[in-house]
Amino acid sequence: MKKYFNKAQGIPGAAPGIEHNEISSLPGGTGEVSIACIDYSAGNVSIEEINNLEDFLGRHRPEWTNVRWICVDGLSDMGVMQDLATKYDLHPLAIEDILQKNQRPKFEAYGGEESDFTARLFIVTQVFQIKDGRFQHDQVSIFLGHKTVMTFQEHRSTEWDPIRQRIKAKGSRLRSSDASFLAYSLLDALVDSCFPILETFSDRAEELETHILEHSQPGLISEIHQLKRDLLKMRWVIRPMREVVASMQREQHECISETTHIYLRDLYDHVIQITDLIETYREIISDLTETYISSVSNRMNEIMKVLTLIGTIFIPLTFLAGVYGMNFKYFPELNQIWAYPAFWVICLGTAVIMLLLFRRRKWL
Amino acid sequence: MKKYFNKAQGIPGAAPGIEHNEISSLPGGTGEVSIACIDYSAGNVSIEEINNLEDFLGRHRPEWTNVRWICVDGLSDMGVMQDLATKYDLHPLAIEDILQKNQRPKFEAYGGEESDFTARLFIVTQVFQIKDGRFQHDQVSIFLGHKTVMTFQEHRSTEWDPIRQRIKAKGSRLRSSDASFLAYSLLDALVDSCFPILETFSDRAEELETHILEHSQPGLISEIHQLKRDLLKMRWVIRPMREVVASMQREQHECISETTHIYLRDLYDHVIQITDLIETYREIISDLTETYISSVSNRMNEIMKVLTLIGTIFIPLTFLAGVYGMNFKYFPELNQIWAYPAFWVICLGTAVIMLLLFRRRKWL
Amino acid sequence: MKKYFNKAQGIPGAAPGIEHNEISSLPGGTGEVSIACIDYSAGNVSIEEINNLEDFLGRHRPEWTNVRWICVDGLSDMGVMQDLATKYDLHPLAIEDILQKNQRPKFEAYGGEESDFTARLFIVTQVFQIKDGRFQHDQVSIFLGHKTVMTFQEHRSTEWDPIRQRIKAKGSRLRSSDASFLAYSLLDALVDSCFPILETFSDRAEELETHILEHSQPGLISEIHQLKRDLLKMRWVIRPMREVVASMQREQHECISETTHIYLRDLYDHVIQITDLIETYREIISDLTETYISSVSNRMNEIMKVLTLIGTIFIPLTFLAGVYGMNFKYFPELNQIWAYPAFWVICLGTAVIMLLLFRRRKWL
Amino acid sequence: MKKYFNKAQGIPGAAPGIEHNEISSLPGGTGEVSIACIDYSAGNVSIEEINNLEDFLGRHRPEWTNVRWICVDGLSDMGVMQDLATKYDLHPLAIEDILQKNQRPKFEAYGGEESDFTARLFIVTQVFQIKDGRFQHDQVSIFLGHKTVMTFQEHRSTEWDPIRQRIKAKGSRLRSSDASFLAYSLLDALVDSCFPILETFSDRAEELETHILEHSQPGLISEIHQLKRDLLKMRWVIRPMREVVASMQREQHECISETTHIYLRDLYDHVIQITDLIETYREIISDLTETYISSVSNRMNEIMKVLTLIGTIFIPLTFLAGVYGMNFKYFPELNQIWAYPAFWVICLGTAVIMLLLFRRRKWL
Amino acid sequence: MKKYFNKAQGIPGAAPGIEHNEISSLPGGTGEVSIACIDYSAGNVSIEEINNLEDFLGRHRPEWTNVRWICVDGLSDMGVMQDLATKYDLHPLAIEDILQKNQRPKFEAYGGEESDFTARLFIVTQVFQIKDGRFQHDQVSIFLGHKTVMTFQEHRSTEWDPIRQRIKAKGSRLRSSDASFLAYSLLDALVDSCFPILETFSDRAEELETHILEHSQPGLISEIHQLKRDLLKMRWVIRPMREVVASMQREQHECISETTHIYLRDLYDHVIQITDLIETYREIISDLTETYISSVSNRMNEIMKVLTLIGTIFIPLTFLAGVYGMNFKYFPELNQIWAYPAFWVICLGTAVIMLLLFRRRKWL
Repeated sequence: MKKYFNKAQGIPGAAPGIEHNEISSLPGGTGEVSIACIDYSAGNVSIEEINNLEDFLGRHRPEWTNVRWICVDGLSDMGVMQDLATKYDLHPLAIEDILQKNQRPKFEAYGGEESDFTARLFIVTQVFQIKDGRFQHDQVSIFLGHKTVMTFQEHRSTEWDPIRQRIKAKGSRLRSSDASFLAYSLLDALVDSCFPILETFSDRAEELETHILEHSQPGLISEIHQLKRDLLKMRWVIRPMREVVASMQREQHECISETTHIYLRDLYDHVIQITDLIETYREIISDLTETYISSVSNRMNEIMKVLTLIGTIFIPLTFLAGVYGMNFKYFPELNQIWAYPAFWVICLGTAVIMLLLFRRRKWL
Repeated sequence: MKKYFNKAQGIPGAAPGIEHNEISSLPGGTGEVSIACIDYSAGNVSIEEINNLEDFLGRHRPEWTNVRWICVDGLSDMGVMQDLATKYDLHPLAIEDILQKNQRPKFEAYGGEESDFTARLFIVTQVFQIKDGRFQHDQVSIFLGHKTVMTFQEHRSTEWDPIRQRIKAKGSRLRSSDASFLAYSLLDALVDSCFPILETFSDRAEELETHILEHSQPGLISEIHQLKRDLLKMRWVIRPMREVVASMQREQHECISETTHIYLRDLYDHVIQITDLIETYREIISDLTETYISSVSNRMNEIMKVLTLIGTIFIPLTFLAGVYGMNFKYFPELNQIWAYPAFWVICLGTAVIMLLLFRRRKWL
Repeated sequence: MKKYFNKAQGIPGAAPGIEHNEISSLPGGTGEVSIACIDYSAGNVSIEEINNLEDFLGRHRPEWTNVRWICVDGLSDMGVMQDLATKYDLHPLAIEDILQKNQRPKFEAYGGEESDFTARLFIVTQVFQIKDGRFQHDQVSIFLGHKTVMTFQEHRSTEWDPIRQRIKAKGSRLRSSDASFLAYSLLDALVDSCFPILETFSDRAEELETHILEHSQPGLISEIHQLKRDLLKMRWVIRPMREVVASMQREQHECISETTHIYLRDLYDHVIQITDLIETYREIISDLTETYISSVSNRMNEIMKVLTLIGTIFIPLTFLAGVYGMNFKYFPELNQIWAYPAFWVICLGTAVIMLLLFRRRKWL
Repeated sequence: MKKYFNKAQGIPGAAPGIEHNEISSLPGGTGEVSIACIDYSAGNVSIEEINNLEDFLGRHRPEWTNVRWICVDGLSDMGVMQDLATKYDLHPLAIEDILQKNQRPKFEAYGGEESDFTARLFIVTQVFQIKDGRFQHDQVSIFLGHKTVMTFQEHRSTEWDPIRQRIKAKGSRLRSSDASFLAYSLLDALVDSCFPILETFSDRAEELETHILEHSQPGLISEIHQLKRDLLKMRWVIRPMREVVASMQREQHECISETTHIYLRDLYDHVIQITDLIETYREIISDLTETYISSVSNRMNEIMKVLTLIGTIFIPLTFLAGVYGMNFKYFPELNQIWAYPAFWVICLGTAVIMLLLFRRRKWL
Repeated sequence: MKKYFNKAQGIPGAAPGIEHNEISSLPGGTGEVSIACIDYSAGNVSIEEINNLEDFLGRHRPEWTNVRWICVDGLSDMGVMQDLATKYDLHPLAIEDILQKNQRPKFEAYGGEESDFTARLFIVTQVFQIKDGRFQHDQVSIFLGHKTVMTFQEHRSTEWDPIRQRIKAKGSRLRSSDASFLAYSLLDALVDSCFPILETFSDRAEELETHILEHSQPGLISEIHQLKRDLLKMRWVIRPMREVVASMQREQHECISETTHIYLRDLYDHVIQITDLIETYREIISDLTETYISSVSNRMNEIMKVLTLIGTIFIPLTFLAGVYGMNFKYFPELNQIWAYPAFWVICLGTAVIMLLLFRRRKWL
C-alpha cells in the first residue's frame, strides 16, 4: 500500500515546483548514477557513457546528429540534476515530478513561444517489473524537445535494450525518424512490457482457479487478495496512461511529427487493450472469490451433512442403549430372552429408515 | 484465460509494425494454406482456388470484374503473406495485427491521398465457434479497397459459406453491389453467428436454473463459473465491435458506398442487440449465483434444523437414562414399581413439548 | 430465457433484409390473420374489416380521409405480407424486422427524397401482458407515412381498444389530428400499459417483503428470482424505447407534425418514469435478497443457539451420569447416602450457571 | 412501494392531457379546498382567502400589484380546477400532471409566442414530510407566468409559512423582486426542507450503527431495510429535481429574471448537496448491512466455538464413562483399586490438553 | 454522520443569503477571533495582528503593497463579520456560505462589471485534520479580489504556516506574484495536506490487512467500517474540489493571472491524484471486508471440522459402550472372555477407518 505513496511528497504549503538553483541543496541518495548520450541520424550513430558531465555539457553536439537521447539512470546525484535542468531549461514543476516517485502518469506541454521556458513535452509514467516474485513499479520521466529526448529513471530498465539495438541497426525505421518517434518507441516498449506481466497474472489466476475448484484451502483467499491488489496497482498506472496517450495524439505540438501521430494511434490501441485485459481479469478474479466462498460454503455443507447423518442415526440409539442400562428394579423387558436381539433389530431398522429418508431428501 | 493472450505479441521494445521485407523471415507454422479468388459482377462470376500464387499475382484481373474477394485461410506460410502484402501494399502495422492472434477487434483507415500507402480500410474481428463443446474464437482480418476485399483467417469458417452461395446466385443484391457491401456482408455473417451461440448459452443457463432451484449440487458452481467466463470472453470481442461498426458508419471513406452505410446501420443494431443480450445474461447468471448461494444456505439451514431437532429431543432424554443407570446405593426411585413406566411418560412428554415448541417457532 | 430469442433469426450469412418477391416463399404459420382498415377525418369515420385484400388494395381511398390506419393482427399469412409490402413499398430490412419476433425496440427512418423507397418511419416495440399469471411480451411494428399508419402484431392487443373508441368519438383531439398523432397515441397506449404491470410487480414485491420479514421460507428465493427476471425483461424493452422516443423527438421528419412533437415530449417523460421505476424496483428487490439472506442467517443463528444451549447444558451432565454408572469395584461416592441428592444439586447448579452465563453474553 | 404509484394514472390508451371542458366531469374528492390570493409589490401587500372563486376571477387585479400568488390547497373540487384552468389558460398536459399524484419532478415550458397557449413555466415536484414517524411525500405543482405564480397541492405545507412572513415583511428582497423570484423561493423552501429530514435519517443510521456494533439483534435488518427504502424514495424525487433546476437555469425564458437566475445557481447547489448526501448515506447504510451480516457471522462463530469446546471435551470423556459402565464379565480394570481415581486423572488431563490445544489455535 | 450536517442550515423557507445589515443580529459564538493582515510586494512585507478593526478598515493600504491577505481565524464575532462584509462588499449568498459549516466545496464568481457587487471569486473548501486520533474537517472560505485575498476559518490551521514563511522570505516566487497566486498557494497547501492523512489511512489499512490474514478478531470489522467512513468523508470533500479547481482553471476571470492558471493545472493534478487514491483505497478496503468475511467463514469451517471429527468418531463408540452397559438378562457377549478386548479393537478400528476416510476427503 505504501507503494502508492511518496514520502518525499514535500511539506504541504511548500513552494510548488523546484527552481533550478534549489536542486543541488536537496538531499540526494546513495545509488549509482549513469548517464548515456546516444546521438544518431540515418547514417551515423554514436553512443557515449558520460563520466564528466560538465565537460559534456560544454561541448556542442555533432553536426550530423538528428536525434540526441540523454538517458539518466539513477536520481541520487542532485548536482547532476541541477546541471541538466539548467542546461536544458526544464520547468520547475517538471523537476519536482521527476524527483517525486510514485507519480500518477501524466503528460504536460511546458514552455513554447509565449513562455520563458523552451518548448518541451514532459511525460511521466511507470514501468512494471516482477522482481523476486514481487510485483513492483519504477517511475520513468521523459522529456521531448525538437531534437532531443531526455529520460530519467531510478534503475536502468531492460525494457529499452531492444531500442538501443534498433538504434545501432542501420536502416531501421527508428534511425531515419525524428525525436518524437524515439519518444514513442520508448513509451511503446514500456507499455508493451505489461503484456508478459499480464500473462503471469493470467497464469496465477488459472492456477488459483484449478485449486479452488478442486479443494478450497484457506490460504487461497490471501493469494486471490494479492492478485487483486497487483491488478489494482497496474490499473492505477494504466488508466491515466490512456489519457496521456490520448492527449499526446490530440496535441498538435511542434515536437511531434506526423508519422509519430500515426504510431501513437497504435500505442493508444495497446493501452486500451491492457485496460481491457485488466478489467477482464478483475472480473474473473472477483468471480473467483465468489466461487471460492461458495465452494467453502459447499464444503461446510458437506461436513455438516456427515455430522448430522452420524448424529441423527446414533443419538436416538444411544438413548435407547441408555434406557436399557437403567437399574430400575421393575423392568420387564430386561428379563425377556428376545429383548437383546430385538434391540439390535430396532437399531438397524432405525438406521436404515434414517438413511432412506436422507436419500429421499437428496442429502446423500 | 490464456485465450486472451498472444504469446507471439513480440518482444516489448521491438519495432512497431512488420515491414514488407521482414515478413518472410518470420517463423511460419505447419498448417495448410488455401487461397481462393472470387471475381464477380452483376453478370459474371468466377471462383478460382489459387495454387500458384506468383502466377496469379502476375495476371491482370478480368475486365468485367466488379469486386474481387481474395480469401486466405491459414496464416502459416510467410512467403504467401509477403507476396500479398507487397502486391496489395498493406500497412506494416496491419500486417502485425493479422499475424498476432487474439487481437481486440479494431477498425483502421490506412493510407489515402496524402500517404505512401494505398487507401485501405482494415478491420480485425473475432469469430466464435463451439467446437467439441468448448467455446472458442478465431481471428478474422478484413481489408477493404476500392474494388477488392481481402480476408485472412487461421481456419476456414463455415459462417461465410452462405455468402459464397449468394455470390453464385444470379440477381442477388450482393452481386450487383460493390466491394464495401461484400465487406459488410462478411462482417454481418460473423456478427450474426453470435446468435446461435447465445442461444446455447441461454439453454445452459436455463438448465442451470432448473438444477439450482431443484437441488443444489456442488458441481453447479463451476458450471456457472464457466458460463460467466464464456460470456466475458464474448463481451471482450463484442464491446469493441460496437466501436468498430460505429466508426465504420461515421467514416466517410471513399471505399464505403452509400448503400453499405444504410446496411451498416442494421449491423450496428445487431451488435447492440448482442451486447444487450450479453449484459442481460450476465445479470441473469450473477443472479443465479446469488440464488445458488442462497439455496445452499437454505439447505444447510434445513440440515441444521434436523440435527437440532434430534439433538434437543434426545440429549436431555439420554441424560435422564444415564441418571437411572447410575449405581448409587441409595437411589429411592429405582425401587418404585411405577418408576419405569413413569420414565417413558416423561420421555414422551418432553419430546411432544419440544416438537410443539419447534412448530410454534416455525422450525418444522 | 428463450424469450429473448428468435429462432427464425435466420441463418448467419444469409442476405440482409427480405426482398418483396421473396416474402411469399417464406414459411407461414397457422394462426388467424385479421386486417382492419380505419379511415377518419374530423368529420367522418369508416371502419372496415378486410376479407378480400386484393380487392381492397385495388380501390382508392375516399377523398375525405385524413388518416388511414391499417391494423394487421396475425403474421402467419405470407401472401398478405407480400401484398402489403409491395403496395406500401416497405423496406426489405423493415420486413425482416416485422417477421422476426423478439426484436429490441428500434426506430428507423427509411426512404425519403433521395431514396428508391417512399418516406416512412418504422418503429418496432414490444407490448407486455400478464397472461395466466405469466409475464409475456408481443412484438408490435408500426409504419408511419404521410397519411397512413400501418401496424403489425401477432395477437390483437386490447391496449388499443380505447384508441378505436376515441377515433369513433366525434370531436376528439385524435380525430382532428394527423397520422403522426395516431402513431403517437398507439405508442402512448403501449407504454402506458406498463404502469398496471409495474403495479402488479410492486404488489408481488410487497408481498415478498412481508413474507421475508415474518419468516423466511425456502421457496421465497425462487420467487424473488422470478421477479428479478421479469423486471430484467421489461428493462430489456424499455431501455431501448427511451432511445426510440428520444430520436423520434429529435427527428425533423416530414411525417411528424409539430403538435405530435409536443406530445412526444410527454411520452418520453412516461418512458423515463417507467425506466426509473424499474431501476427503483430492481434496487428494492436486490435489497430484499440481501434481507432474505440475512434473515436466513439470523434464523440459523437462532437454531444454533438452541442446539448449543441444550448441548452445553446436558453434555457435561450426561458425562457425570455416565461416571456414576461405571462399575468400578472401588467407588467410594456410590455408597454415600447423600450422593444421589448431591448429584441432582450439582446438575441443577451447573444448568443455572450455564444459563446465567448465556444471558450475560446476550445469547438468550 | 405503492407510494410510487398513481392509481389514477388513467387507462392506457386514454387521450393524453385533460382538455378544459373535461375537467369538471372528473371524479373529485371529499377534502377541503382552500384558495388564497396574495398580491404584493415593494410598497403594498394584500392577502385574501377566496371563498367565492367566480366573483374573484371576474375582478381585475389591483393596479399596484407586482406579483400575484394564487395558492390552491386541496385538489378535490373539480369545478374550481376547471375555472382556474380556463381563466389562466393552463395546458391540458399540465392539468393532467397536477391531478395525477406521485409524478416524477419535471419542468416544462408550455405556450409562448407561436403557441395557442399563454407562456407559462410549469414545475412539478414533491415535498417530504415525516408524519407519525413515517416518511411521506406530497406533490406540489407550480405555474409561473409573467406576473403570476399559481401553486397546487393536496395538503397545505408548513414549509411555505416563512415565505408568507417574508412577503408581509416590508423591505424584504422578496417584496421588491418579480414573480420568478417568488417561484424560486417556493422551490428553495421545498428543497431545503430535505435537510432536517436527512438529519433524521442520519440519526437513525447512527443509532443503527451503535446497535449493530454492540449486539446484533435480528430486528435490525428490517430497520436497515426501511432506511434504505426511505432514502431510495427521496432519491427518486431529488434526482430528477436536479435536471429540473438545471434546465430552469439554462432556460432563457421571458418569465425568469436575471436575478432569479443567480439564485437558481444557489438552489442547484443545494439540490446537488442533497443528492450527494443521499448517495453518501446509501453507501454508509449498505456498509452497515455488510457490517451487520459480518457481525452476525462472527457471533455464530463464537457460539459454534463454545459448542465445539464443550463437545470435544466431554464427548470422549462420556465415551470413557460409558466404557466403564459396561457389564462385561471379564473386565480387569474394574477390580483395581486405583481405577476410579485414575479415571478422573485421565478425564482432567484430557480436558486440560484440549483447552491448551484450543488456546494454541487461538480459539479461546 | 452528523459531521455532514450543519445544524445552522437555517429554517427552510428563510430568505436566501444574508444581507449585510442582518449579519450583526445573528447569534455569534464564544470562540476567540484573531485577524491578521499581511501586505507584501516583491520588496516589502508587513504582518500586522489587527486588534482594532474599525481603525484598520479606516486606514488606506500602503502604496507599495501588491497583495493584501486578510486572514480571519474564528467566526464567532458577528460585528467583525459585518464590518468586513460591508467594507469588502461581499455577496449575501457568500456570507451565508461562510457562516454555515459543512458546506460542500464550491467555487463562485460573484459580481463583475454588470453587477452591483465588486468582482470577487469565492471558494469554499474543507481542510482535514487528525486530532486525538479522530479524523475531522474544518471549513475554509477564500475570497479573491484584484489585489486582495480574504480567508475565513473557524480554527487557525497550521497548513498555512509554511506560506507565511514563504511570504517573509525575500525573493520567493510568491512574493513576486499576484493575489491569485497566493490564493492558489493557499488551496495547494490545503489539498496537499491530504497526502499525509492518506498515508495514515494507508497504514491503518495495511495493519488491518495483516491482522485479518493472521487471525480474524471480531473487532476488526468495526475498524474496517471506521476506515471506510473516513474515506467516504474525504471523498465527499475531494470530489467537488475537482469541479472547483477545474472551473477555476476554465474561468477566464480578471482576478486570475496567466501564471496562476499554469499552476492551477498542477493543483488539479493533485486533486485527481487524491481522488484516485481514495478510490483505490476504497477498493482495497472493500476487498479487505470480503477477505475478512471469507476468513471468518474459513475459521468456522475449521472449527466445524474438529467438532465433526470428534463427533463422528466418538458418537458411534459411545453408542457401543452404551449397548454393553445394558442390563438384559440374556446377553451372550457379556460372558465371553474376549469380549472386552474385542470391544477396544472395534473402537480403535472404527476410529482409524474414520480418520482415513476424512483424510481421503481432504478434511484433515
